[in-house]
Amino acid sequence: MSKFWSKVVHGLTPYIPGEQPKIHSLVKLNTNENPYGPSPKVIAAIKQFADDTLKLYPDPNSEALKKSIADYFKVKANNVFVGNGSDEVLAMAFQALLKHNAPILFPDITYSFYPVYCKLYDIDFKVIPVNSSFEIALNDYLIPNGGIVFPNPNAPTGIPLTSNQIETFLKKNNDSVVIVDEAYVDFGTESVIHLTEKYNNLLVTHSFSKSRSLAGLRLGYAIGHRDLIEALMRVKDSFNSYPIDRLGLIAGIESFKDDSYFKNTCQKVIHTKINFVEKLTGLNFSVLPSGANFVFAKHAAVEGKIIVSKLRDQGIVVRRFDNPIRISSYVRFTIGSDEEMDSLFKALKLILSA
Amino acid sequence: MSKFWSKVVHGLTPYIPGEQPKIHSLVKLNTNENPYGPSPKVIAAIKQFADDTLKLYPDPNSEALKKSIADYFKVKANNVFVGNGSDEVLAMAFQALLKHNAPILFPDITYSFYPVYCKLYDIDFKVIPVNSSFEIALNDYLIPNGGIVFPNPNAPTGIPLTSNQIETFLKKNNDSVVIVDEAYVDFGTESVIHLTEKYNNLLVTHSFSKSRSLAGLRLGYAIGHRDLIEALMRVKDSFNSYPIDRLGLIAGIESFKDDSYFKNTCQKVIHTKINFVEKLTGLNFSVLPSGANFVFAKHAAVEGKIIVSKLRDQGIVVRRFDNPIRISSYVRFTIGSDEEMDSLFKALKLILSA
Repeated sequence: MSKFWSKVVHGLTPYIPGEQPKIHSLVKLNTNENPYGPSPKVIAAIKQFADDTLKLYPDPNSEALKKSIADYFKVKANNVFVGNGSDEVLAMAFQALLKHNAPILFPDITYSFYPVYCKLYDIDFKVIPVNSSFEIALNDYLIPNGGIVFPNPNAPTGIPLTSNQIETFLKKNNDSVVIVDEAYVDFGTESVIHLTEKYNNLLVTHSFSKSRSLAGLRLGYAIGHRDLIEALMRVKDSFNSYPIDRLGLIAGIESFKDDSYFKNTCQKVIHTKINFVEKLTGLNFSVLPSGANFVFAKHAAVEGKIIVSKLRDQGIVVRRFDNPIRISSYVRFTIGSDEEMDSLFKALKLILSA
Repeated sequence: MSKFWSKVVHGLTPYIPGEQPKIHSLVKLNTNENPYGPSPKVIAAIKQFADDTLKLYPDPNSEALKKSIADYFKVKANNVFVGNGSDEVLAMAFQALLKHNAPILFPDITYSFYPVYCKLYDIDFKVIPVNSSFEIALNDYLIPNGGIVFPNPNAPTGIPLTSNQIETFLKKNNDSVVIVDEAYVDFGTESVIHLTEKYNNLLVTHSFSKSRSLAGLRLGYAIGHRDLIEALMRVKDSFNSYPIDRLGLIAGIESFKDDSYFKNTCQKVIHTKINFVEKLTGLNFSVLPSGANFVFAKHAAVEGKIIVSKLRDQGIVVRRFDNPIRISSYVRFTIGSDEEMDSLFKALKLILSA
């Protein structure tokens, strides 16, 4: 605590990201990274552009990258915003679009960064409990609000809503911004990007850190009506002229070019997930339906806390959450490679038979 | 304008960075980039680390980079904050340290991003005119204030204050944060980093974009008392867990390792500047004293606006500013390579003799 701090700093409770262990021999299934790595074409492009031109600023507007994204999703470049990871995109969206008189709404069980952004920007919020099956019940959000944000699929449950469910809701909630955070959408959930053309209050955010295997490079984007994008641009241009570096720009563009690599690796993760869920069920776990590259599961007899700790002893890192209390017995398993999931499965069998 | 915008967005007037021209044949002397490019060891390290591990998140706390910086400046790692360019570092410093009841102070002629940050974070400010020689007169800042920020050397004038002048001021202003923005310090200005140990209200910010030739990668840092750094960390951890990507981290570390390359290239720029100032003077320019890698100069007869426009016709891009009015006839010339400055000099001679 210091007299030099601005008032806001005193009340901040930072988001705590999953551990990035320093021991490299660990099987790392705790932060939903992709087991397959980026496309070799992405790596090649980065090596090619790592040269003397790094002395020059990047394009402050990341136009070439926006165009790649826009072409891919059949929208216009002025419907696209890019940022230094989807966390930065979300932060700017909270500041630019969610500060109004009424509180914003998000689920009680969700990405735990949302309340942190609210504190940072002094945004009033109200959490809406997910139902007893851990599903987001969008009808519960039909109350006066200053905006709505939820991940689809939700985190850390992994449960997806359908595009139809979201559209039904958008028809009824058209007076405030709805942000659908699709960080994990490519692993078996329907995107609502196509609805951004029809609903001028819908903003969809995406990450390069999961399905595009570029967590290490920090890239994210948002798609929505040009007026929403303009608000994000105004905040960005008042914060940092050049959030995306030259190598990030080229990597993002190449990632969208190599679509078959992208689709193949997503499919591989989905297949591995299906197999792993079957095995978990066989070990007496109840597993929530997952449209993500992770599964959220609870064992019939053994507490999540014990499972996480014993897995760590065997060199496998997974994640669980103390809060809220009704998810505290669950464990979140990132879907890794088949080999990693085999190691995990063997370790779980050993732990549960002990 | 849209009903979906947060109130703050309506009033934002973005900072406008210098043009990043799409035509690559231009001689680009408008955004103070370094002519020499990063150390070959930096490039080699980026190529080496551009691999499959980009699928993994970077260290959220950038510890290895902070340690490199701390070792170099003989401070502790908890005296160092790193960000996605020094603009991001400054933005976070404004939010974390400069929002108090009294207005903050900065010069009328200075980095034009400062008032933009104030708007973004609703910070009250008062501008203090530089004196008739365009110097920052620190005695004028001895009035009640919520914080003080100025670049040293100042931008776009390039005029440096000495370390003694700043220390004299710090002795008298110890109740509010003083941010010294040393983006250009390595080109002939005394740093005050050594004073951060003695004055717990002093924060010094640095950039990798100028002397370290990495404008394309986006890296900046701040050094100060651990309490000031903690405020920055709290804001950062409430905004984006991973602002620095894996390649930025490694590039930053390698840049500090190759100190002889760094010092040689800074010296070369300084020598080129000395020669160029002599030539400019010979062409009837009055040139402000510069501790930076640019010079700010005014011709005895020809308006800055005309010079900039005619240089552009000859494929040379430099920068000038409409506001405030008393600098509108000046031109800012970035110091490029000797060859670039020769081309510029020849073009100026031609223009002025026409």
